[in-house]
Amino acid sequence: MNPELKTAINSEFLKLENLIIRNSCEIEQWFRSKWLDQEAPFYASVDLRNSGFKIAPVDTNLFPAGFNNLNPQFEPLAIQATTIAIEKICPEAAKIIIIPENHSRNIFYFKNLLSLTEILKNAGLEVEIGNLDPSFQKTEYEIDGHNIIVYPLQKENHRVFIKKNEHKFIPCSILLNNDLSSGDPEFLKDITQTIIPHTSAGWFNRRKSNHFKFYNQVAKEFTDFLNIDEWLINPYFDTHEDMDINNENDLKIITEKSEFLLRKIKDKYTKYGINHQPYLVIKADAGTYGMGIITIQDPSEIMQLNRKKRNKMSTIKDGQKVTKVIIQEGIHSEEILNEAVSEPVVYTIDHYVIGGFYRVHTSKDKNENLNSPGMEFFPTPFEQSCLMPDQGRDCNDPPNRFYVYGVIARLALLAAAREIYG
Amino acid sequence: MNPELKTAINSEFLKLENLIIRNSCEIEQWFRSKWLDQEAPFYASVDLRNSGFKIAPVDTNLFPAGFNNLNPQFEPLAIQATTIAIEKICPEAAKIIIIPENHSRNIFYFKNLLSLTEILKNAGLEVEIGNLDPSFQKTEYEIDGHNIIVYPLQKENHRVFIKKNEHKFIPCSILLNNDLSSGDPEFLKDITQTIIPHTSAGWFNRRKSNHFKFYNQVAKEFTDFLNIDEWLINPYFDTHEDMDINNENDLKIITEKSEFLLRKIKDKYTKYGINHQPYLVIKADAGTYGMGIITIQDPSEIMQLNRKKRNKMSTIKDGQKVTKVIIQEGIHSEEILNEAVSEPVVYTIDHYVIGGFYRVHTSKDKNENLNSPGMEFFPTPFEQSCLMPDQGRDCNDPPNRFYVYGVIARLALLAAAREIYG
Repeated sequence: MNPELKTAINSEFLKLENLIIRNSCEIEQWFRSKWLDQEAPFYASVDLRNSGFKIAPVDTNLFPAGFNNLNPQFEPLAIQATTIAIEKICPEAAKIIIIPENHSRNIFYFKNLLSLTEILKNAGLEVEIGNLDPSFQKTEYEIDGHNIIVYPLQKENHRVFIKKNEHKFIPCSILLNNDLSSGDPEFLKDITQTIIPHTSAGWFNRRKSNHFKFYNQVAKEFTDFLNIDEWLINPYFDTHEDMDINNENDLKIITEKSEFLLRKIKDKYTKYGINHQPYLVIKADAGTYGMGIITIQDPSEIMQLNRKKRNKMSTIKDGQKVTKVIIQEGIHSEEILNEAVSEPVVYTIDHYVIGGFYRVHTSKDKNENLNSPGMEFFPTPFEQSCLMPDQGRDCNDPPNRFYVYGVIARLALLAAAREIYG
Repeated sequence: MNPELKTAINSEFLKLENLIIRNSCEIEQWFRSKWLDQEAPFYASVDLRNSGFKIAPVDTNLFPAGFNNLNPQFEPLAIQATTIAIEKICPEAAKIIIIPENHSRNIFYFKNLLSLTEILKNAGLEVEIGNLDPSFQKTEYEIDGHNIIVYPLQKENHRVFIKKNEHKFIPCSILLNNDLSSGDPEFLKDITQTIIPHTSAGWFNRRKSNHFKFYNQVAKEFTDFLNIDEWLINPYFDTHEDMDINNENDLKIITEKSEFLLRKIKDKYTKYGINHQPYLVIKADAGTYGMGIITIQDPSEIMQLNRKKRNKMSTIKDGQKVTKVIIQEGIHSEEILNEAVSEPVVYTIDHYVIGGFYRVHTSKDKNENLNSPGMEFFPTPFEQSCLMPDQGRDCNDPPNRFYVYGVIARLALLAAAREIYG
């Protein structure tokens, strides 16, 4: 079952979706030319929002979890793409260690590790899981009838390994499934094995605003190529740095920047005849996991932020203090499945789209962030692949909509590639 | 629905299948190392035979038809592999012309062209079809509600093109789906566009015996690697050249060679306790389409070949005269679906297995050739991909059997790659 767009789709958006579907050949060529000299991240997931009048990425994760939420039918696509990625990055690799999130006890996260392990195994790698936390003790988990063992990571002669039945398992490469929010791990600094992706892709180093700066560039190139308004795939944003959420003056500046952004958005809404209430999302620039995020509709809300909201904004994962925020145009989530707001997430390996799923949420508003702590969502896998646009059919046809999602996700991926590899 | 192996599977074979499934990681690494410096054919289909005690390729087609027989569920896999192949061979390609078989009026062949066109389009190419025959007139066919137009191929300034609505469609590359049985086409000799695969892969140039010489090499490397008897995946063969099927002396030599081969096969049957009647397949060394093929169980049959069988052996497609034969160990087809003999065909694009189907035949014996002129078979697509072996399950489990098929097909593909690219 696939979601439906709740509102009457705006004609400008229809134009955009149809244009993408009608020009799929040219778009694939365009991507081919872009990837020719550009290394792609090993894997990624891209959160999209579809308001019925615009569609855009809101987060690009380079250490994606959630592989368990994908349609098992398309696992071969993930295996094939992984084979390709390994052939490029480390063709001689035989053994690999996945470094997971340090402290996760979330069963869904372990299901993700199980799915990821399966994909890597079928691409021809021996896989073990090694925790980066020095205090970690070997732990065995039973997930869906399979055993997953997480070992403590060890190091010797500049090589990490795990000890399995008294034997050392020394990998050729290390796959990070840990977003490194808490910093560049000392433990990995002097090792000689290939780290995928490079630790510099970690959140201790990445900034949302930097990602969207590159996305601006890519979105402009793409919309110039298609000759459409860039705004239809790119949310406005601004940033404020060296700030303290409890400082009156900082809040004032954020208010002014928010007023300016809202005015620009309202102009676009007027131009396209959109009757929605525009809103903004203010996020910690280095934040992940939906932490450090608030939404506002009226800039005056900013000066009146209560203690709870200020606290919510002031620290992110692993207790990092927020000193820079990104203020971003909010995109209404207008896809509805079983009366619930649904938000697409697209997965890539190398520069290939391997599938996606919807976060289907029952309790939240369409302009709230679904990827927030303690969130409960029902993952609903895409039923079709993102590779088969059908020009003979409507853009509401799921394979066509998924193709469009795959295109927008690849724009974000290209931005991330430029961001981390230059 | 998947076929079942009719006979009790021989324990040696079980050992082989289990060994392949258990060692899938190492096998994928082995393939990775082999493909590292070896260009792969753009596409191929490999006919396999599974006797329950041995499994081997019997034909490797570098201009595969039958894409319409594959499971539509796995089309994304074909699209992704095609994208990869194009990125390697001709990343700048935007337009491509498929050159089909010259004289086919077979509706299934046009369905194949339709499927192939869809795959190429979704990989981002504009596709047209151009017939190589100078007398060909533009023809429109309606296939499954889609129109297919085949244009006559034209040439100007060393570039081929087709004329579509008074516009020239000039491709960057040409995809041959014509096996060039009738010779190296003069028309293509001086063109500057990329021809995929190179015309030297055509049957005017290829010899079955040459392919199997390379297969011997690959099979030896693989079985040495797995430490098993090469015979379990490789049929014995011999050749006889400069011959005339009507010459008594030639028939005598073929008889002697056949006696020798049958003795070797019987020794293996004795060693492994196999109770089948061994047989041989004698084929025109340059033959395709199942033409120029006879099967024998007793070498004395050769001297007694009647006129009809001699005629069948003496000419192949496009009236070519047979002057060299390959005498090959026959492999019994022991897979049975709905009481019918079923033979697997595996498809590859670049060096990736994208799927396969069974030729299910109701009227033929298990030791006859199913790919013969006028044949009628029911194509039954593989229900699962060939990429997901499951070590927790039986080798009769379809994903496991398909994985093994994918492995053997890739051995034949590697042989074909060495054969055509060196």
